[in-house]
Amino acid sequence: MRQTPLIALLTDFGLTDPYVGQMKAVLMAAAPGLPLLDLTHGIAPQDVRQAAFSLAASLPWLPEHALTVAVVDPGVGTDRRIVLLETPAQRILAPDNGILTLVLREHASCRAFDLTPPTPPASATFHGRDVFAPLAARLACGEAPETLGPSLPVANLVRLEGLAPVRQGSQVTARVLAVDHFGNVVTSCAVTEYPRLPAAPRLRAPVDRPLCPVATYAAIPPETIGLLAGSQGYLELAVPGASAAALLGLKSGDTCILTFPEED
Amino acid sequence: MRQTPLIALLTDFGLTDPYVGQMKAVLMAAAPGLPLLDLTHGIAPQDVRQAAFSLAASLPWLPEHALTVAVVDPGVGTDRRIVLLETPAQRILAPDNGILTLVLREHASCRAFDLTPPTPPASATFHGRDVFAPLAARLACGEAPETLGPSLPVANLVRLEGLAPVRQGSQVTARVLAVDHFGNVVTSCAVTEYPRLPAAPRLRAPVDRPLCPVATYAAIPPETIGLLAGSQGYLELAVPGASAAALLGLKSGDTCILTFPEED
Amino acid sequence: MRQTPLIALLTDFGLTDPYVGQMKAVLMAAAPGLPLLDLTHGIAPQDVRQAAFSLAASLPWLPEHALTVAVVDPGVGTDRRIVLLETPAQRILAPDNGILTLVLREHASCRAFDLTPPTPPASATFHGRDVFAPLAARLACGEAPETLGPSLPVANLVRLEGLAPVRQGSQVTARVLAVDHFGNVVTSCAVTEYPRLPAAPRLRAPVDRPLCPVATYAAIPPETIGLLAGSQGYLELAVPGASAAALLGLKSGDTCILTFPEED
Repeated sequence: MRQTPLIALLTDFGLTDPYVGQMKAVLMAAAPGLPLLDLTHGIAPQDVRQAAFSLAASLPWLPEHALTVAVVDPGVGTDRRIVLLETPAQRILAPDNGILTLVLREHASCRAFDLTPPTPPASATFHGRDVFAPLAARLACGEAPETLGPSLPVANLVRLEGLAPVRQGSQVTARVLAVDHFGNVVTSCAVTEYPRLPAAPRLRAPVDRPLCPVATYAAIPPETIGLLAGSQGYLELAVPGASAAALLGLKSGDTCILTFPEED
Repeated sequence: MRQTPLIALLTDFGLTDPYVGQMKAVLMAAAPGLPLLDLTHGIAPQDVRQAAFSLAASLPWLPEHALTVAVVDPGVGTDRRIVLLETPAQRILAPDNGILTLVLREHASCRAFDLTPPTPPASATFHGRDVFAPLAARLACGEAPETLGPSLPVANLVRLEGLAPVRQGSQVTARVLAVDHFGNVVTSCAVTEYPRLPAAPRLRAPVDRPLCPVATYAAIPPETIGLLAGSQGYLELAVPGASAAALLGLKSGDTCILTFPEED
Repeated sequence: MRQTPLIALLTDFGLTDPYVGQMKAVLMAAAPGLPLLDLTHGIAPQDVRQAAFSLAASLPWLPEHALTVAVVDPGVGTDRRIVLLETPAQRILAPDNGILTLVLREHASCRAFDLTPPTPPASATFHGRDVFAPLAARLACGEAPETLGPSLPVANLVRLEGLAPVRQGSQVTARVLAVDHFGNVVTSCAVTEYPRLPAAPRLRAPVDRPLCPVATYAAIPPETIGLLAGSQGYLELAVPGASAAALLGLKSGDTCILTFPEED
C-alpha cells in the first residue's frame, strides 16, 4: 500500500451551507496533515450523471494513489451500498448508484469492496460527514479495505444507462453531460472517438443549426456555434462570449442530435 | 495551552470577490504552515442569526482546540466589541453581535475576552482581513488572550432574541434558521427536544399542510412534505427532489407555526 | 531565489465545474506540499478589467515571494503570450492580455519573461490546467525563469486602456471596476488620490444623486448613498443593507460620472 498523497472531494453539497466544511473538519480531525482537494461541490443537486462525468474527467489529473470521495447520493439513508473502487492508479469511495459508470468504462482492471457499515450510523441524512469522511480517513491512514468490508464483483456495481451516444449512419443521438460555468455544452460524444473533428457537423435537435469545427474557443467566428474537442474529453458546443446552452435551450441531461457527415 | 490544529473560517463574504482570499493570505503569511478550513463563506449578507446557527452546528465536528474566526459583522467600524469565547474544547473569535448566542446556550462553562483593538485600525471597512486575521494568527501561534485584552463576563455578551421556539400546547411557533442548498427548511426546533418525531405533525403557517415524519430524505413519499431530524441538530422540512422552501414560500428568518399533537 | 511560500490562484473558472479542482490537482501532483491559496475564482467570465483590479488589490496581502497564477484568458489557444512578471516582492504568471495593467502601474521596477511554450500544448482550450499549472509548479520548485523563456521588456506588455479616471475641474469620469457580493460599487478612483474624502460629493451619471462621505458602511444614514474609501484601494458607493449596484443600475465596466467640488 502506497501512501495516500491527498483526499479529493466531489459532491453536490454546494458552498452556501457548512456541509462541506463539516465533512472536511471530520477528515482533518481524523487524518491530520493529509492534504484535501476540492474537485468541485457544484454538481447539480442529485445529478448522478453529471457527477459520473466530472469524476471520470478529473481522475487522470490526480496524483497516483489519491483517494477520491464522491458523494452525490439521492439514496442516503436507504440500503444502497457504499463501495470502494480501486483502479490501477486511483481509489474512489462512493455510493453504488451509477456514479462510477464512466470510470468503470475506462478501466478494465479494477477491484471493488462493499464498505457499507454493518449497522446504520447515528445520522440518517448526512453520510458525507458521518459515514464517508470517517471511512475515507481510515483508508487514507493505511487501513486495508479488506478489513473494512467484503470484496465485491465489479460486474455487480450499478451502471447508469443511456450515457453512450447512439449512432445511425451519420446521425448521433447524444446526451448533455454538463453545462459549464461559461455556458459551454458538454456532449456525451467522447473525443477519443473523433480523433479528427468532422468537416461539416450540424446540430439537428433541439434546433437545427450548422456547427463550425474549431480548435479553440477564440477561433469561433461571430454569430456561429463552434464544435470543439473539450478539455474534459468530450465534444463541446460553444459560442463566442456567451452561453451556448442558453442560445440552444440545452441543459444537463437533455438529448441532442448531431450529424457528422462522413468525408469522401 | 494546547497547539492550535487549524483555523476555521465562517463569513458572509461570498466567494465572488477576493475578500476571503485576502483574509487567508494574511493568515498564511502570519501563521505559515497552519491549516485553514473554510466552514462556509455563504452566510446570507449580514444574517447574524443564520451565522449563529451554522457556527454552533459546526463546532462539534472540529478537532479540539481549533480556533474559529466568525465574521458576519454589520457593525464593522463601529464601537461593537471583538471578543474571544473559549468553550471547554473550542475557541471562537467574533464580533460581539449575537453570533455566539447558540454556542453560549450549549456551553455552561465558558470564558470570554474583549480583544477590541485599543486604537482603530487603518482600515474601517474590512476587519476580517485587517483586524480578525492578525489577531487570529497571534492566538493560533500561542499568544495568551490575557495579553491581548481584558477578561469579559460571559453574561455581558450580546444575545439574539427570538431564536427559541415558543410552545403553546401542541403548537410551536418557530423561526427558519436557514434554507439550505437543496431547499430544505431548517427550523429552530432542536432535535434534542424531540428525541422521537411526533406522530402526526402539521405545518399551520404560512400554509396549512400535513407533514410526514421520516428518517431520511429518500423516505419522503411523492407529493408529500417530510419532517425529519436534520444533520445540523434541528427539525427540517423537505420535499423529494425539489425545494421545500420554494414550495412553502419560506426563507431564512421567517416565522412558521407547527403543531405536534401529543400522543395518547 | 527565495523559497516560494505559496501559489495563489485567481481565475474566472467559477466553482461549479471541476476546472479549478483539476488545475489544483496538477499543482499538488507536481509540487507536493506547497500550499495553495484561492484568491478568487469568481471573476466574471472573461472580464480582464475586473481581474486586473482584483489581482492588484490582492498582491499586497500575500507573503513575500508568493507566486500568483492569474488566468482570465479569452485568447486561450491563440498566439497571445504567457508571461511571468516579477515585482520586487511578488511573481505573477498570466496571459499577456492586460491583466497586469494595474500591477505595472504600481511598480516601477519589474522584470518580465516570455514563457509561452515553444510548441503548442496538447490541449487547446484549458491552459490553466495544461500550461499554467505545470509552468507554475516548475517556477515554484525553484527553476529560474531564464531557463524557461527569454526576458521581455516590461514596456512591451499589453495594457488595458480607459482604466484611469478622467478629471475635468470638479468632475470625474470613472469606470466601475467591480460590483461586490454585497452590491457595493467599486469605482476606478484610487483612494491614494483622495486622502481626504470630498465634502459634498455627488453622483451625476447614470443617475443624479447626492453622496454622503462616510468612513464605514454602518455610518451610512438610511435612504442615503455612501461614498467611502474601500478596502480594495478605491472609492466605493454603498447603501445600508442593500445593493448600491442594483439601486443605481451599475455593473462592472460601466461608466459613472461624479463631482467632487473643491473646498474653499
